[in-house]
Amino acid sequence: MDINTARQTLDDIERKLYAYKHAMAIISNDAETAAPAESQQGRGVALGILSGEAYKLTTSAELAAAAEYVLSHKDEADAELLRRAEIIKRDARETACIPIDEYTAFTELTNESYYVWYNAKLNNDFASYAPYLEKLVETMKRFSKYIDPEKDTYDYLLDSFEEGTSREYYDKFFDDVKAVLVPLIAKINDKKQPDSDWLQNGSYPVEGQRRLTELMFDAFCLDRNHCTCAETEHPYTNGTDSQNVRITTHYHTEDPTSSLFSVIHEGGHANYELHINPEYDYNCLGGGVSMAVHESQSRFYENYVGRSREFVEWLWPRFAEIFPEQTAGHTAEEFYRIVNAARPSLIRTEADELTYSMHIVIRYEIEKKLFAGEIAVADLPAEWNRLYKEYLGVDVPDDTRGILQDVHWSGAQFGYFPTYSLGTAYSAQILETLKKELDFKTLVAADNMHPIIDWLSERIYRFGCLNKPATYVPAITGEPFSAKYYTDYLTEKYTELYNL
Amino acid sequence: MDINTARQTLDDIERKLYAYKHAMAIISNDAETAAPAESQQGRGVALGILSGEAYKLTTSAELAAAAEYVLSHKDEADAELLRRAEIIKRDARETACIPIDEYTAFTELTNESYYVWYNAKLNNDFASYAPYLEKLVETMKRFSKYIDPEKDTYDYLLDSFEEGTSREYYDKFFDDVKAVLVPLIAKINDKKQPDSDWLQNGSYPVEGQRRLTELMFDAFCLDRNHCTCAETEHPYTNGTDSQNVRITTHYHTEDPTSSLFSVIHEGGHANYELHINPEYDYNCLGGGVSMAVHESQSRFYENYVGRSREFVEWLWPRFAEIFPEQTAGHTAEEFYRIVNAARPSLIRTEADELTYSMHIVIRYEIEKKLFAGEIAVADLPAEWNRLYKEYLGVDVPDDTRGILQDVHWSGAQFGYFPTYSLGTAYSAQILETLKKELDFKTLVAADNMHPIIDWLSERIYRFGCLNKPATYVPAITGEPFSAKYYTDYLTEKYTELYNL
Repeated sequence: MDINTARQTLDDIERKLYAYKHAMAIISNDAETAAPAESQQGRGVALGILSGEAYKLTTSAELAAAAEYVLSHKDEADAELLRRAEIIKRDARETACIPIDEYTAFTELTNESYYVWYNAKLNNDFASYAPYLEKLVETMKRFSKYIDPEKDTYDYLLDSFEEGTSREYYDKFFDDVKAVLVPLIAKINDKKQPDSDWLQNGSYPVEGQRRLTELMFDAFCLDRNHCTCAETEHPYTNGTDSQNVRITTHYHTEDPTSSLFSVIHEGGHANYELHINPEYDYNCLGGGVSMAVHESQSRFYENYVGRSREFVEWLWPRFAEIFPEQTAGHTAEEFYRIVNAARPSLIRTEADELTYSMHIVIRYEIEKKLFAGEIAVADLPAEWNRLYKEYLGVDVPDDTRGILQDVHWSGAQFGYFPTYSLGTAYSAQILETLKKELDFKTLVAADNMHPIIDWLSERIYRFGCLNKPATYVPAITGEPFSAKYYTDYLTEKYTELYNL
Repeated sequence: MDINTARQTLDDIERKLYAYKHAMAIISNDAETAAPAESQQGRGVALGILSGEAYKLTTSAELAAAAEYVLSHKDEADAELLRRAEIIKRDARETACIPIDEYTAFTELTNESYYVWYNAKLNNDFASYAPYLEKLVETMKRFSKYIDPEKDTYDYLLDSFEEGTSREYYDKFFDDVKAVLVPLIAKINDKKQPDSDWLQNGSYPVEGQRRLTELMFDAFCLDRNHCTCAETEHPYTNGTDSQNVRITTHYHTEDPTSSLFSVIHEGGHANYELHINPEYDYNCLGGGVSMAVHESQSRFYENYVGRSREFVEWLWPRFAEIFPEQTAGHTAEEFYRIVNAARPSLIRTEADELTYSMHIVIRYEIEKKLFAGEIAVADLPAEWNRLYKEYLGVDVPDDTRGILQDVHWSGAQFGYFPTYSLGTAYSAQILETLKKELDFKTLVAADNMHPIIDWLSERIYRFGCLNKPATYVPAITGEPFSAKYYTDYLTEKYTELYNL
């Protein structure tokens, strides 16, 4: 072998892997957006077989040999080839630890679990979902032990979504966050809340909300030739490469801000994917580097831009043009206060910036207990409801608005939730640097997003998976990561909003 | 090997083939219904690789050996296993004739050609599509010679869509059809036509037309749990197995009957697929047996049911409920006469029953000349326009409404069009038998479709690909196939409608 042969082998096999991942992504996306309600059986068969073929490629001796060659001839390889070899070697090792039958059975299980979760949420029927959750938890425990028998399963899962994190890491992070948030939320508790009945009990036809989505595509420079928006129960972003990205939203006629901020959030994920170096499209450098870095971008647009006074003032007349009757007699400032009202609530995806991380803390604590064996699946609804009462003071009326609200666990994505808070904190720190280099407020006030997106592309998006996730904040800001920027931001914003 | 091992090998490899076909079907369906406009590049990469893997499975020595074992131990195999072995052997032989690189390049070419056709139709730009058409024609010529150097390419293509057909077969068939249709159309030429301005120049919002689609799902017992309807430029049906079928339509606000009859037509294809024995879902007996048998069903529901006086009388009050203003002061009989008006026109999919086959004759004659080398791709628009003038007396205003109107050629589906007429004629003959056994008119008048669908399922649908296509008409009707039933039906219907 020589370095060119090694590179060619990587190119060829990664291109094949891309084909399988492309197929599985489109099949899954279709399942959530367009497929008939009871078509899951054949889809399970297909996904099982496709994932089995992907398994064989990932663990093939040929690929491993080529990656090993690169890693033992570092001086002949460029940074991109080296990083690919590193990622491939790690994936190959971890995948090979799982017997192929169990690997494909897992793909079939998550396909079925999505379907079961969807119906359970629809029918407020946790009991039908519980056996699947048990199987999913059990599978993740087993897999993590195959891969690293010494490591705690939940530590493994946290690290799989954000390299370098663990319970220890997040315990410290959430302690820092709670130390500021809990007293801040308490202070606001007896403050007067803005009247939101006109905005959130009105009737907002889906057609108008679709126009609002179009407006957000323009506002955030989302390239319609390479990104579309469909409708699903749970908004998400998915894609196959930098030329083919999909976001989804959910229109609630009673509250237009739900879809509005979902679209801005998912649009942030999409802008990340759309700006990755297209040379990485068919190898493992394609795609966002980690969930926290991904969420740092979605939450950046959703909150630091979308919920800023400057953006709301830009948006308001356009919003009022789409919904003239519903908005008559109201002002941008009222709208601004409503979408920033810190009000303990039931649904994570609709939470305000201040209470949002408490929704995450609840999920983090539940997952930690679940994987420590301190709580059984059957007890999850009660524990969920107890923690919502404890941390947010709200009574959960049913499991649909409680434990069943999120799609993540149906895909075995345990350990994902903490990345939402961590990512939000990442981008608070990044924002401070951005503000030193760009006139952020003026740009947002004019909806002049291109310089902001370019700035972020240059420092984050274009690299795809080239750099390790933990390197971004220090590289961009020149400082180690600290939750302080996030908590300072919230303190300042909510002190002003509520005259604390 | 023994028969059980052979069966197991077939089961295993066909299941894998199903996975690849499932993936390619969903990717293609997504491309036409949901994908961003310029996402074709990665899709081409993925489809090329997936089709290459399917090629390897189809031509694998293991599969061939198992099929051969079954075919040489006929007494040990049941009818289903035997037919599977037959189909597999033929597919393997034909596929193996084509070099794998050319096979995958062809998949990539049709992916790109669809995109080019779509834009060419949108922009009335035949020139941009012509080089692709040339490549597609050249590829089909080359492939047919690989498979059977002695056989004429167009004969090969006709046979590939309907086993047992050829130019000779269709020349005779279309001569029989033209002998009746040409004078019948001429007779109607100077007859008074019904006034359709109120129906076809009105404004029919898409929302109302979507309700009409829902009504047709009910009217034709389409199972929403296993079948959905999306919107595309060109209506079609596609599916992965009997539990997962998709139809599409196109809403034209100026004429609600366009989508109405598209939905009934595609719903006919869907009902066929939905009623195939689910045991065939993951092997080569799944899916409809041939294009003419498939079209016999779509055209059966579209015309013999959908355009019948009984169905129109059932439909009218429901149609008027959806579009009260547009229909005020009009009657079911007016509606019936409009949807049955024999009026030479430009667009095949919107043609009436009488002139429909002339649209097919034009395409058949063009394809025949194209593959005989008697006409070049560059001359197709002129030839198309000349034939529309000659056979239908209409002037084609632009290529969008002319040569670019149909999607088929962009997928290299040359030889497909004749199956529309042949299938329509198949079902005219089948209808005569059905009428002897069921009270067809009474059932249709009450929209009592279940007995009709059951009758057809029992005789056609459930078999999937088990029987050869040419066996259906003789088996069901007890007579050899004859175009006479089709031409008699049209003569009777149009003599009454126009008092000939």
